[in-house]
Amino acid sequence: MSVLIVGSTALDSIKTPKAENPRLLGGSASHAAVAASFFSPVKMVGVVGDDFPKRYIQLYRRHKIDLEGLQILPGKTFHWSGEYEVNMNNRRTLLTELGVFETFNPALPKSCQDSEFVLLANIAPALQHHVLNQMRRPKFVVADTMDLWLNIALPDLLKLIKRLDGFVLNDSEAHQLTKEDNVFAAVKKIHKLGPKYVIIKKGSHGSVLSGPRGFFICPAYPLHKVVDPTGAGDSFVGGMMGYLATARGSIEDNIRRGMIYGSVTASFCCEGFGLKCTTRVKRSHIEARVKELEKLTRF
Amino acid sequence: MSVLIVGSTALDSIKTPKAENPRLLGGSASHAAVAASFFSPVKMVGVVGDDFPKRYIQLYRRHKIDLEGLQILPGKTFHWSGEYEVNMNNRRTLLTELGVFETFNPALPKSCQDSEFVLLANIAPALQHHVLNQMRRPKFVVADTMDLWLNIALPDLLKLIKRLDGFVLNDSEAHQLTKEDNVFAAVKKIHKLGPKYVIIKKGSHGSVLSGPRGFFICPAYPLHKVVDPTGAGDSFVGGMMGYLATARGSIEDNIRRGMIYGSVTASFCCEGFGLKCTTRVKRSHIEARVKELEKLTRF
Repeated sequence: MSVLIVGSTALDSIKTPKAENPRLLGGSASHAAVAASFFSPVKMVGVVGDDFPKRYIQLYRRHKIDLEGLQILPGKTFHWSGEYEVNMNNRRTLLTELGVFETFNPALPKSCQDSEFVLLANIAPALQHHVLNQMRRPKFVVADTMDLWLNIALPDLLKLIKRLDGFVLNDSEAHQLTKEDNVFAAVKKIHKLGPKYVIIKKGSHGSVLSGPRGFFICPAYPLHKVVDPTGAGDSFVGGMMGYLATARGSIEDNIRRGMIYGSVTASFCCEGFGLKCTTRVKRSHIEARVKELEKLTRF
Repeated sequence: MSVLIVGSTALDSIKTPKAENPRLLGGSASHAAVAASFFSPVKMVGVVGDDFPKRYIQLYRRHKIDLEGLQILPGKTFHWSGEYEVNMNNRRTLLTELGVFETFNPALPKSCQDSEFVLLANIAPALQHHVLNQMRRPKFVVADTMDLWLNIALPDLLKLIKRLDGFVLNDSEAHQLTKEDNVFAAVKKIHKLGPKYVIIKKGSHGSVLSGPRGFFICPAYPLHKVVDPTGAGDSFVGGMMGYLATARGSIEDNIRRGMIYGSVTASFCCEGFGLKCTTRVKRSHIEARVKELEKLTRF
């Protein structure tokens, strides 16, 4: 089974205390699609400008990502520029140029409309709705979001959440959405908004799933050094959806293991700028870290 | 096998956004000793003033804690008063009256000197040294500490760390000690100071062990509501040491499971003010949560 992934396709200029990297391949869809590609075929829906480097198109192709849904429009590619603080946890947006994203209105190619696994990666909730409206009968729909949409598009986001099987957000966003400090209390409130599965991402502290069989506490892979955490959350959810799309059995049977695969894929993402490290990874590297996580959590 | 526990025995006045509780039984040794008592016999070393309520002595006795090493001196019991913020993570000390602790110099009764398992719960490192100097041949010595001693008694603390088998501290203290933001990088530096086992406590995010067999990622038990986290860290390490003192096999074989038992004991501590909830717990309640944690981390 393939995964349909819609989200942002961008150029990221990332500053950390140790380095500066201009115009890397970035965006939630790019990170999620590459992550998912280790496990299942991927169809990506997004938009880039005519300034989008050809080598990035080649990179998508090397990962066998179906680009029929990727529009190339006259104008500039979405450009985000941000800076991380010394501890790599706090980041600050320096610049956002929407470019061709400003008027993006994705018309899904026929080949994308039957996908059973749909990941609405972080992007304006109106666009997530728009994509979902064009889907025939998706089996499992998951969306990610960010604080920006909680601030400027909350009504759209709340309408979207109602339509989801799974909703993924980080702990500070869960707090912002529910006013609950306690993660487990927040999760309870989010279930009431609609989704059967709620996943809270906690960065280096891992993530928590709440679903019909209760909670799952998913560890982060222990990294001694984080080079650039941009896209780690997208890699996490992308890896999970890729795993679920090809795993045998029910979602409920597989989602815990799917999160572990997502967590490991995200760990590679953090070890290089942009997609540098993720794109070098082989499935065997992922399997090795999954085995390690099994050992690291056994008691 | 019994555990010898030295630390503070105090009266805690605790304010949270929802309640105020004066003169509860508190102190690192009290919390650790009650936690350890679910798993093994405990000998406690500490000092209280002649104002120490009899009902607290009875409470220790109900937990079969050997009090030969508890001195009752003329004067006031150590009194700590603190206030928690809304999110229950940040706390602020309002008042510290050392009382009889100011001149405390524990002389270990003979019966305590052969203990094989020694927990130097949080107290001035000079006192932790003093107790360790009186031990015959302890098999496994673990110490906990707090930011105060990093600030005002670092040379003493560094000398102590050299003598330990295991050192337990929280993530912000690990950062303060090593200047490393990354937990796993911090752990590496702490091993170089002496201890074979390093445990970093991360509050509601669980804890991490580093030892000869590598890392262990220990989850916190999911709580929907934290009433009062005071003493949770002491309960964690007390529960772990109690478990280790009676478990068959090597420390290395048992320490992961020991941390899980500590983590569960700490979860009960957080559900009531002071020791209110911990003292109501039965071993069967602990076993039930350990089983739940097994389920919550399986993938």
